[in-house]
Amino acid sequence: MLSAEIIAVGSELLTPTKTDTNSLWLTEKLNEIGIEVKLKTVVGDDRARLEETMRDALRRSDIVITTGGLGPTEDDITRPISALAIGRELIYHEELVEDLRIRFRRWGREMPEINKRQAFVIEGAKILPNPNGSAVGMSVAVGDKFFVILPGPPRELKPMFEAHVLPDLKKSAGKIVVRRRILRVSGIGESAVDEAIAPIYKTYGTVETSILFNRSEIEVNLAAKAESETEAEKTLEELAGKIVEQLGIAVFATNGELMEEIIGKFLTESGKTLAVAESCTGGLIAERLTDVSGASAYFMEGATTYSNEAKTRTLDVSGDLIKAHGAVSAEVAEAMAKGMRERAATDYAISVTGIAGPNGGSEEKPVGTVFIGYADESCVKSLKLNLPGDRYLIRWRASQAALDYLRRQILKTQSETAK
Amino acid sequence: MLSAEIIAVGSELLTPTKTDTNSLWLTEKLNEIGIEVKLKTVVGDDRARLEETMRDALRRSDIVITTGGLGPTEDDITRPISALAIGRELIYHEELVEDLRIRFRRWGREMPEINKRQAFVIEGAKILPNPNGSAVGMSVAVGDKFFVILPGPPRELKPMFEAHVLPDLKKSAGKIVVRRRILRVSGIGESAVDEAIAPIYKTYGTVETSILFNRSEIEVNLAAKAESETEAEKTLEELAGKIVEQLGIAVFATNGELMEEIIGKFLTESGKTLAVAESCTGGLIAERLTDVSGASAYFMEGATTYSNEAKTRTLDVSGDLIKAHGAVSAEVAEAMAKGMRERAATDYAISVTGIAGPNGGSEEKPVGTVFIGYADESCVKSLKLNLPGDRYLIRWRASQAALDYLRRQILKTQSETAK
Repeated sequence: MLSAEIIAVGSELLTPTKTDTNSLWLTEKLNEIGIEVKLKTVVGDDRARLEETMRDALRRSDIVITTGGLGPTEDDITRPISALAIGRELIYHEELVEDLRIRFRRWGREMPEINKRQAFVIEGAKILPNPNGSAVGMSVAVGDKFFVILPGPPRELKPMFEAHVLPDLKKSAGKIVVRRRILRVSGIGESAVDEAIAPIYKTYGTVETSILFNRSEIEVNLAAKAESETEAEKTLEELAGKIVEQLGIAVFATNGELMEEIIGKFLTESGKTLAVAESCTGGLIAERLTDVSGASAYFMEGATTYSNEAKTRTLDVSGDLIKAHGAVSAEVAEAMAKGMRERAATDYAISVTGIAGPNGGSEEKPVGTVFIGYADESCVKSLKLNLPGDRYLIRWRASQAALDYLRRQILKTQSETAK
Repeated sequence: MLSAEIIAVGSELLTPTKTDTNSLWLTEKLNEIGIEVKLKTVVGDDRARLEETMRDALRRSDIVITTGGLGPTEDDITRPISALAIGRELIYHEELVEDLRIRFRRWGREMPEINKRQAFVIEGAKILPNPNGSAVGMSVAVGDKFFVILPGPPRELKPMFEAHVLPDLKKSAGKIVVRRRILRVSGIGESAVDEAIAPIYKTYGTVETSILFNRSEIEVNLAAKAESETEAEKTLEELAGKIVEQLGIAVFATNGELMEEIIGKFLTESGKTLAVAESCTGGLIAERLTDVSGASAYFMEGATTYSNEAKTRTLDVSGDLIKAHGAVSAEVAEAMAKGMRERAATDYAISVTGIAGPNGGSEEKPVGTVFIGYADESCVKSLKLNLPGDRYLIRWRASQAALDYLRRQILKTQSETAK
């Protein structure tokens, strides 16, 4: 099995607030083709330490990947230091500068002179194009080692690695492959999930199973090792099937999909439409739904009715109802869903009203009190939740609970129709 | 100034799902007493690599801290390898075993024999008690270097470090402290910011400045070293002031604030209100604004008018206007802002309509074409943008551009009123 080391470059990664996430993604990609990550380093804009780290890594491991430090400014030192570490020259590529000038012009700006620094490439290295940024990457064989230099921003690094590095690595990697699969579960706790499915996954010796709690859901991570992709996928398919059989509709995704993608799939397949009325989630549900490409086919309208006046004006929730029960109540949640559905003339509408905190709680309705409303052509109902966490988490969990409530209603309707 | 390296030990930290968070906490604690972290390493249960990493770190840096790998099982190798790396013996401490036996009995269990491994301590090392777990830590002077060995679980590591390591480090750390500050800049590129402010920050030898591009804005990170907090803060204040003077209103935050917090501050101070009409951002702007606690004082209502019908129904944008110019046009953006402001009776309204992709683009209006609309009591206007990136980035950048457009309009109005 080939070994790899990852070096993340950048002083900001040595501060208390920034962490290197690229290496997690790279590790996954490397593992998938049977390459093991043996060491990860984070080094700042420190020339001596970076050079030594690169030299050590190339001595110890088959593949060395650096991320970051390719920007145009003086503290971006990866380019010169990597050339130094392997004893090669940097060659100036005029065509890269031309390309950059054109791109800057397209963005309506002149290319600053210092961006010329990004046109220097290690002698003999393959240039890795960067459609999403100004820094090209490089890959170069150093004896029997493979040295890869990537930009830091994930949106530049990921497509570059997949298009221009992975194919080369696949050629030299060994026969064991690892395939991963994520199942997502809502409405059951971490230990209950584990108790229910441990007797199943423990019979699969070639699959590593881990169970993680993730903001609002349980993730069941499966990693299967096999001698071929087909074999690994077959094992995953079989194990995932048994887990779904055991946990039932609590499993909302069997292939890593997000809740909003699952909702989108249901609505697209059935040709139904949706509208959303939000108070404490402040637009988060609409934002999540419309983050899915193609949402315009089923998502018609969203209303963030933050003030009481907006609830009355836009959702036709009567002022008397708000006065009688409070804006955070089952009655108002239901009236919001009903009003939204009528306004937008959709098949479904969901609503959320609650107290996200940190202020606004009372003894009767503490921070975390949330009501979810639901309306379709034949019924209007609601659900009360007491959500733990800070403002961010309460909002997130409320959005997830509302989408899950909708999912369960849709499934219920489907199974009733099927009868 | 003393330098430190942190070595996280454990194969689980080299998987795609686990990340080392101890080092962030340790970095913060070390920075506070003026110790700079120069390098971080994650190494698995690999004897040769761990020994080499420890030796290298002790040669390069004043303080070396390892975390993890102190458990009782065979793959917990930190104890023997750290002794090897500094050429000392491990000494068996019977009293530690006795202590463990008592603790296990208190938990209602007999101590497993393998826990005896945790009673071996490096010759001459100070033993760091662990009230929250079975592994003691160690600290030992190696020549003029300081070597600290801590357990991995944060609830064991943190109290141990604070009670038994920090006091020793404070004595030798000397008087230097570090204070940090982040400025955020919109509407100028990374290289242009650097060109403009490099002549300023380069005159500050005690401040480390780094410039980062962050989705939609430029972050200027300042870290000032000084002999006292007051002095460090004074330097930061002075340098931040000069940077603002140079870059003008492009600097939207001088203390790490987010754009939505800055907007919230402006609106709270002036007592003005806001409503938002969104199409391609799908609720993201409302979500960001309401993520700020206290937003209900100024944020009244948001509309995600995804379909054309919703634009007409809710924002009073005429169907003829949409037919004449298209839903993605300056005219519709302005009508959306105007309609939203009138509907919600707010001081300001902003709107966004655009093509976030990946589909829906045309030659005339490619993916990334976005119009921002703005309305206040005296004017309605708009701005056209061509945003690069994928769906996620285009939506994010459109939301940021809309909030920044509002910010600049507010500043303009303020300066006109002041005249």
